[in-house]
Amino acid sequence: MKAEIITIGDEILIGQIVDTNSAWIAARLNEAGFTVVRKLTVGDDRREIADAVEGAMRTADAVIVTGGLGPTKDDITKQTLAGIFGGEMVRDRETYERNGRILAARGIEYNELNREQATVPSSAEVLQNMHGTAPGMWFTRGGKAVVSLPGVPFEMKELMETEVMPRLAAHFRQSKVVHRTAITYGLAESVLAATIAEWEAALPGYLHLAYLPSPSQIRLRLSAYDIEGRREEEEIERRFRVLERLIPDYFIGYGDATVASATADLLRARRATLAVAESCTGGALSASFTAMAGASDYYLGGVVSYSNDVKVGILGVSPDTLRLHGAVSEQTACEMAEGVRRLCGADYALSTTGVAGPTGGTPEKPVGTVWIGLATPHGTRACKSVFARLRTQNIERAAAAAANMLRLELLHRQPTE
Amino acid sequence: MKAEIITIGDEILIGQIVDTNSAWIAARLNEAGFTVVRKLTVGDDRREIADAVEGAMRTADAVIVTGGLGPTKDDITKQTLAGIFGGEMVRDRETYERNGRILAARGIEYNELNREQATVPSSAEVLQNMHGTAPGMWFTRGGKAVVSLPGVPFEMKELMETEVMPRLAAHFRQSKVVHRTAITYGLAESVLAATIAEWEAALPGYLHLAYLPSPSQIRLRLSAYDIEGRREEEEIERRFRVLERLIPDYFIGYGDATVASATADLLRARRATLAVAESCTGGALSASFTAMAGASDYYLGGVVSYSNDVKVGILGVSPDTLRLHGAVSEQTACEMAEGVRRLCGADYALSTTGVAGPTGGTPEKPVGTVWIGLATPHGTRACKSVFARLRTQNIERAAAAAANMLRLELLHRQPTE
Repeated sequence: MKAEIITIGDEILIGQIVDTNSAWIAARLNEAGFTVVRKLTVGDDRREIADAVEGAMRTADAVIVTGGLGPTKDDITKQTLAGIFGGEMVRDRETYERNGRILAARGIEYNELNREQATVPSSAEVLQNMHGTAPGMWFTRGGKAVVSLPGVPFEMKELMETEVMPRLAAHFRQSKVVHRTAITYGLAESVLAATIAEWEAALPGYLHLAYLPSPSQIRLRLSAYDIEGRREEEEIERRFRVLERLIPDYFIGYGDATVASATADLLRARRATLAVAESCTGGALSASFTAMAGASDYYLGGVVSYSNDVKVGILGVSPDTLRLHGAVSEQTACEMAEGVRRLCGADYALSTTGVAGPTGGTPEKPVGTVWIGLATPHGTRACKSVFARLRTQNIERAAAAAANMLRLELLHRQPTE
Repeated sequence: MKAEIITIGDEILIGQIVDTNSAWIAARLNEAGFTVVRKLTVGDDRREIADAVEGAMRTADAVIVTGGLGPTKDDITKQTLAGIFGGEMVRDRETYERNGRILAARGIEYNELNREQATVPSSAEVLQNMHGTAPGMWFTRGGKAVVSLPGVPFEMKELMETEVMPRLAAHFRQSKVVHRTAITYGLAESVLAATIAEWEAALPGYLHLAYLPSPSQIRLRLSAYDIEGRREEEEIERRFRVLERLIPDYFIGYGDATVASATADLLRARRATLAVAESCTGGALSASFTAMAGASDYYLGGVVSYSNDVKVGILGVSPDTLRLHGAVSEQTACEMAEGVRRLCGADYALSTTGVAGPTGGTPEKPVGTVWIGLATPHGTRACKSVFARLRTQNIERAAAAAANMLRLELLHRQPTE
């Protein structure tokens, strides 16, 4: 089955935003056995949209359209789809009532613009958007399906998962495809490839391996196409278990696993608690744990000690340490970790102190230098990393490296020790 | 002048990578006065590529093609372009010699695959790639230009800047385009549209307005096309200044401004300092400030008081308050803000305490309930918001709402008070 993705929005064509929706949709469609043959972005222009949708329907079986559904007048997708699939514009009662409640909760009354949000072509089956005011729409013609979704990423994703994927599965008899992704952290792509070369060479021909690198981790995806039973899925499981034993320190988990989630799993399994003291990561390390539901099982709290006064006053870092070694130092990192561990009464504590950039670097401590401290029931230590020049990436990479330092500690120290 | 961007690569169609190249190219083309009318992604398939390029040439004056030039794939794109523009495949001497040096430096000899890299259609003008082995190509026909570039971002960008943009400027007599974006926060799209309806209606016909909503802000973009002098740019400035006065509380700034950056600007202008106490936002509020370079000008530090023990032990929240009112309450939010303000010696302090979800909600305090506290030199207060059901969104929206509470305080209280 062939699919095409159409993204609507002038903001994409002028390069104001990077279109991440279509990559997510493409991955989701591929998992479900669709071959995405094209991705197209057009502006908020009636004729461009109509040409795009009609063109896509000539080759694709399923067409996913995102964007162009807001209440303001630059959004003309609904009228255009009504022009293609026919029917008149009618009010969807369920959307109208839910939008009324959403607006009322925010102290807003219905006006001409937001009332229009609940209007859809009568040729559409409405996909109820529980997280926003623009409904999704499902159209069919000659066995083909065209879906229109709002462009707000989390609304789009929720509608794809709950409404679109089940409808596509029911509408098309799809051949099954299986993908599974393993997450690795800490090995450069070329080193990882060399390390697992034999494992890779021994894979059966019907399993396809892909490397998906990103700044803080490398994902390995195994795929099997046109499968019939459970055999291929089981073989993927078996191969990945061999991989786990091959690179135990670098193997993080499967699917959406991150260094933080793998660390959280180990903390939970050990019934251990965590506290965090952050300087250069400025809250991002704590946020990487608390972004996950159930973080209160193990995460007690943290201190963002951005100024030296806070390092001394709250965390109890010695003024002599700061004077002799500086804020970005092994000693300060250790004292920060010990301070927050004591303060929060946690089993483990992590700390970060470094030069995130773009300014503040010195020849001795260039931008990107980060000390990460780890205080445990068995002692405290710190290690240094030197990342790159970009502030945002340095913060992200330091937070991942800190979580990984604790992950390795938990992995290698048996619970009985 | 119209432009189209074509990205070639199976890896994009299966959702393995997010295409960031095309956003960069789109922004660059817009700056130079091109209107990007479409962006298209196709797979590594000869017919798809040929259809895409020929289709683009029907409407666009300039077509930028990226990708499909690696040593294993170059046959397809180069041969396809040779098929369209004619000519035979010939070796480019300069590329061949440079590639030989690059390979030798890496201890690699020429083989069949990498030798092909230096072969180009004779109908192409070669764009020398100083950073990689795949050359760029410039084709023209009937006044139109088609450019083929490697997909590696820094190779592509370097070739665009040094080779493509100057050639496009020489080839086309370009008209100028101007875009400017204003950021609003705190008004739902439909309410914003109703509030500024008169302002919008009074815009001259040559200025185009677009609404770009996202969960925490709505951007308004004004564009003028085919402009000649500075008149349109000045008119946009003038219209936006009117808008500023129309919605002063909701107007955040221009371009990349966020609620946090606008708040940071006000803190800097007042030479005031900030401390942060976070429960439900778990570090994300501090991170939204420290993500910006120069945060140490005003941000002193923060406490992530996830557990009640940390709220009491570090921030000094009264156990009676927690017992009588609960952690998610006006009283706790106020005591958290006051506690961290005192602890860090800051002028202002923000706090958040709420139910981020997905669990932990009660009928009285459903998931999404967040109290935000603000302690100032003039007193402390807290206000309640009820966001939605998704944890990530609730955290993001609570952090933005907290920064905004301080922004409004700073905006309305004159420095002399």
